[in-house]
Amino acid sequence: MVDYELYYWPEIPGRGEFVRLAFEDAGVPYVDMAREKGRGKGEQAMLRMLGSGDRLATPPFAPPFLKHGDLVIGQTANILLYLGGRLGLAPRDEAGGLWTHQLQLTIADFIVEIHDAHHPLSGALYYEDQKAEAARRAADFVDSRLPKFLGYFEGILARAHVTAGAGTRGQAGDRARQGIVGPFTHVDLSLFHVMAGLQYAFPSSMNRMAPSLPHLLTLEKAVRQRPNIAAYLASPRRLPFNQQGIFRHYPELDEGTRDGSPKSP
Amino acid sequence: MVDYELYYWPEIPGRGEFVRLAFEDAGVPYVDMAREKGRGKGEQAMLRMLGSGDRLATPPFAPPFLKHGDLVIGQTANILLYLGGRLGLAPRDEAGGLWTHQLQLTIADFIVEIHDAHHPLSGALYYEDQKAEAARRAADFVDSRLPKFLGYFEGILARAHVTAGAGTRGQAGDRARQGIVGPFTHVDLSLFHVMAGLQYAFPSSMNRMAPSLPHLLTLEKAVRQRPNIAAYLASPRRLPFNQQGIFRHYPELDEGTRDGSPKSP
Repeated sequence: MVDYELYYWPEIPGRGEFVRLAFEDAGVPYVDMAREKGRGKGEQAMLRMLGSGDRLATPPFAPPFLKHGDLVIGQTANILLYLGGRLGLAPRDEAGGLWTHQLQLTIADFIVEIHDAHHPLSGALYYEDQKAEAARRAADFVDSRLPKFLGYFEGILARAHVTAGAGTRGQAGDRARQGIVGPFTHVDLSLFHVMAGLQYAFPSSMNRMAPSLPHLLTLEKAVRQRPNIAAYLASPRRLPFNQQGIFRHYPELDEGTRDGSPKSP
Repeated sequence: MVDYELYYWPEIPGRGEFVRLAFEDAGVPYVDMAREKGRGKGEQAMLRMLGSGDRLATPPFAPPFLKHGDLVIGQTANILLYLGGRLGLAPRDEAGGLWTHQLQLTIADFIVEIHDAHHPLSGALYYEDQKAEAARRAADFVDSRLPKFLGYFEGILARAHVTAGAGTRGQAGDRARQGIVGPFTHVDLSLFHVMAGLQYAFPSSMNRMAPSLPHLLTLEKAVRQRPNIAAYLASPRRLPFNQQGIFRHYPELDEGTRDGSPKSP
């Protein structure tokens, strides 16, 4: 069997986490290359691959990227598109595959907005150099974009649960086998991670919104209890959220505004 | 034959344009639903579909979305993934398909950054309400992100041209049949549109960078001369760039900084 080699920044969950969760849930071995030592491993080796566009047939723009045999695949959602069928985490029919991928791409859009709430001007500047701007962007994010994205996923999940019928209601074990597109997929794993990250970054806002997100909260709990995920979360392979990644906790960005209009800086 | 129905805002090229260009180049009929009048057509009908998440099996988060028979497909890159093989605008092998999609997703990331250069705080606020912040974000964009993205695509194109060999060099007609992944694909059409949009929005910056982008400029010219694209560009179906879309021309954002550090507001 050819190894799955995942390349991603070693210090943050970041976008790499969406790929890690798929491997972990499926119980399929992978090598987290930039977090290992040895020939071709480590962060420097990853940066050399990124910098040597000429030598890769399909150079990625940025991490994460996956190497599997001769294939080098970039873009998180594209990696999950490749892995979905192989790991049993995506429907095999075309319509189901497109729907699953559509949701994963909408999560990708969401992630950009979550990140840019604390870095509205430039990823190359410190948060401290864009605090006033972040306060304005985060107010709009918390008041408008966060409820819009979560409401979208909550609505689809609510309908998926109704469709799944009475037999699965009330049992976390059964719920853990059903997902937002019907069968359990990488989208459910990604939604779990987004919910966990938002609760870390915006605890007050998420607490306020909790009553309107019952299905997302149930999904989060159900994923957390899946045996392979529970084992992963308890392992050193799971990197904690921190102040370097997509999800950062700055209390001053967690408040939004009471009247819905962004604050002046 | 079942109609391809494209749903997108009727007043701007926007993200819908990447889908329009694929249909137009392939010479495959499509209905631009929100720009037509009649039952189920027009912007209001599109908004009703978006607002009626319950009644669509696969509700999109935002336009564009494509309806084809029973399928409703959201996310620009996902629509092009679906259309690629059907329109003869993507390789049919898995590796080629993943590489094509990876590049389309990187264009999607680029588009977000192009848009946010003039709207760093919120899409719900006017440009005039975030001018100082836009000046800082656009300085970083012009000095750092724009050259990084364009340099990435230029490097891959340069290598694709070398690989294609001497026979195709120097002839725009031949060049128009080869593309960034080898065969001509929707990625080439999208890169054409990005180049045209950047030249509208950032003429001074693009002029300064022109000497370092020979292959992108050649691609842009070659696509413009493809018969179906030339006919489309001369038709009323092609919406002009304007100050409502992704690509907007604000001269004050086109300058960057001489020393590479973002301006203070």
